Amino acid sequence: MKSNIVLIGSGGVGTIAAYGLELGGKASVTAVVRSDYNVVVNKGYKIDSCDYGHVESFKPTNVVDSVEKAVEYGPFEYVLVTTKNLPDIFKVEDLVAPLVSETSTIVLLQNGVDIGADVIKRYPKNVVLSGVSMISSTNHNGFIHHEGKDSLKIGYFINENLSIESQKNASERFVSIYLNGKNECTYDEDVKYTRWRKLVYNATLNSICTLTGVDVGRLELFGGVDSMVRSAMREVLAIAKSDGVDLPEDIMDFMIRSDDGIYYSPSMLVDLRKGNYIESEVICGNAVRTAKRNNVSCPNLELIYNLLCVIQMKTKEAKGLVTVPKERPIPQNGECS
Amino acid sequence: MKSNIVLIGSGGVGTIAAYGLELGGKASVTAVVRSDYNVVVNKGYKIDSCDYGHVESFKPTNVVDSVEKAVEYGPFEYVLVTTKNLPDIFKVEDLVAPLVSETSTIVLLQNGVDIGADVIKRYPKNVVLSGVSMISSTNHNGFIHHEGKDSLKIGYFINENLSIESQKNASERFVSIYLNGKNECTYDEDVKYTRWRKLVYNATLNSICTLTGVDVGRLELFGGVDSMVRSAMREVLAIAKSDGVDLPEDIMDFMIRSDDGIYYSPSMLVDLRKGNYIESEVICGNAVRTAKRNNVSCPNLELIYNLLCVIQMKTKEAKGLVTVPKERPIPQNGECS
Repeated sequence: MKSNIVLIGSGGVGTIAAYGLELGGKASVTAVVRSDYNVVVNKGYKIDSCDYGHVESFKPTNVVDSVEKAVEYGPFEYVLVTTKNLPDIFKVEDLVAPLVSETSTIVLLQNGVDIGADVIKRYPKNVVLSGVSMISSTNHNGFIHHEGKDSLKIGYFINENLSIESQKNASERFVSIYLNGKNECTYDEDVKYTRWRKLVYNATLNSICTLTGVDVGRLELFGGVDSMVRSAMREVLAIAKSDGVDLPEDIMDFMIRSDDGIYYSPSMLVDLRKGNYIESEVICGNAVRTAKRNNVSCPNLELIYNLLCVIQMKTKEAKGLVTVPKERPIPQNGECS
Repeated sequence: MKSNIVLIGSGGVGTIAAYGLELGGKASVTAVVRSDYNVVVNKGYKIDSCDYGHVESFKPTNVVDSVEKAVEYGPFEYVLVTTKNLPDIFKVEDLVAPLVSETSTIVLLQNGVDIGADVIKRYPKNVVLSGVSMISSTNHNGFIHHEGKDSLKIGYFINENLSIESQKNASERFVSIYLNGKNECTYDEDVKYTRWRKLVYNATLNSICTLTGVDVGRLELFGGVDSMVRSAMREVLAIAKSDGVDLPEDIMDFMIRSDDGIYYSPSMLVDLRKGNYIESEVICGNAVRTAKRNNVSCPNLELIYNLLCVIQMKTKEAKGLVTVPKERPIPQNGECS
């Protein structure tokens, strides 16, 4: 029997996941599609993919426009989350709530570190998998442009209420379902390492490009890699170490060189340019909080994070989530009234 | 006999200075006017001023469109510079070169710290005055909107080749020429202190608003004053101290509260929004360099400065001062080829 999977987050990453899962024949996918719902229901996704070639029209088995409407197609073996992870805007554990049954495994295919704890706390009896994706794929109004091979690492966020065996089994079964002969997916014994490794890039190059408004190539040409990125990366390595993850020094240059040849705009910069929220909390905030817990000094990351927080508030104001009083309030006793 | 003064920099600050000087009757002003030249020659400046009321048309005694063309109206007793101070774009000491005679006093009415040294080095026999302006005045195409009383402090950048007396005399004479009964101008025994004091605001609130794209009011409402401004201010105080300037702790809250009631956008933010260069070198760069010379730790200011440097490079690219190669170069031996 096919695995019944619900997908929340139909961007470039999620849609390629849905396509690959259905192509492999081992899963049936219910996709929660919000902004592109009409396009997808009427015409399906159009896909140009380095792994799958040109696909004129792809429709997942079920397409719904809200999490609530997905419920009727459950229960789901896997609840696959590929949205941006924005805990300051919405909580993943709230988002998935209607879809998680006793036997569901939740899969977070998202950026950041320390993103499993709150989900495990809410669903202590469910396995929560940790997916770290290496893919370059974008979605513009239902047109998926997939340039970088889908290569996924899957492990689990350790839940001490559950047996290691059940968590490992859920991981390995997901890997076997995901693999379709054209993509890459492996079980990762130490996915926490893999998350911190990716953060070496995201907390530094991604953040600093976002703050300065330039791509990684310009950041290097304009001196910012030498003046800022390396010291911030060293802080990430120190925080990772305090969290039990020992990354090699040469990961820094590997990440600095990872976009060689292209003027690559990393994800938060792209989000900011589009007027969207940025994943500053899970990328920088969680790292800084880990540093504070473990008494690791990280002045650069802390300032980077605090700057990004103000920028996020600006986006909240623009989207109407925060209202700025017409008259500037004067703080009373140190609090803004 | 009237003092013969040449003014370079006809923005909101410079034009009010020119008007005030001519009004006082003790000076004749030759103004170097670049972008507004045609407007000013044909119609004069239109001024709305809290000090001087409405002025339908003001033309300085001489109006020229380049420094070179001002030469014929010399020699000048005072060479008054009210341009932005942008040493990464042009050097003040180069700019004033055609106008400085043996007897000229150079007056830098500009932001930043440590801006006198290079001018003194180039003109070791000339007095160089240091002017710190408190004014709120803008120029839009020859229309001057002057909201905050013109209050100027004048001292001198210490030049050890010259007698204290001659430097003090040049300062006091400038003050007496500048005063016209409607403005404020005082001789400042310790203008270095006054410069560092102003930097407590500019290196922190001004810079951080520029990096986050919000005014001072929003910065406070969005948490940035508490999360960033105070620690950066503490660094400015430490650097000032290492430079012999002992600022009181309560200057921090004074500066934080100095724009109370208004959503004020500080100068570098305004410059950046207009696509203009920002005074990051004299405001942040010189402070950070002083810190390095004196072994003062300032991780926040250093990162702020390095971020602003990349933003300045982006403006240089936009203005054609820097060209980014079509193909992203791969550094050879750590250098961008």
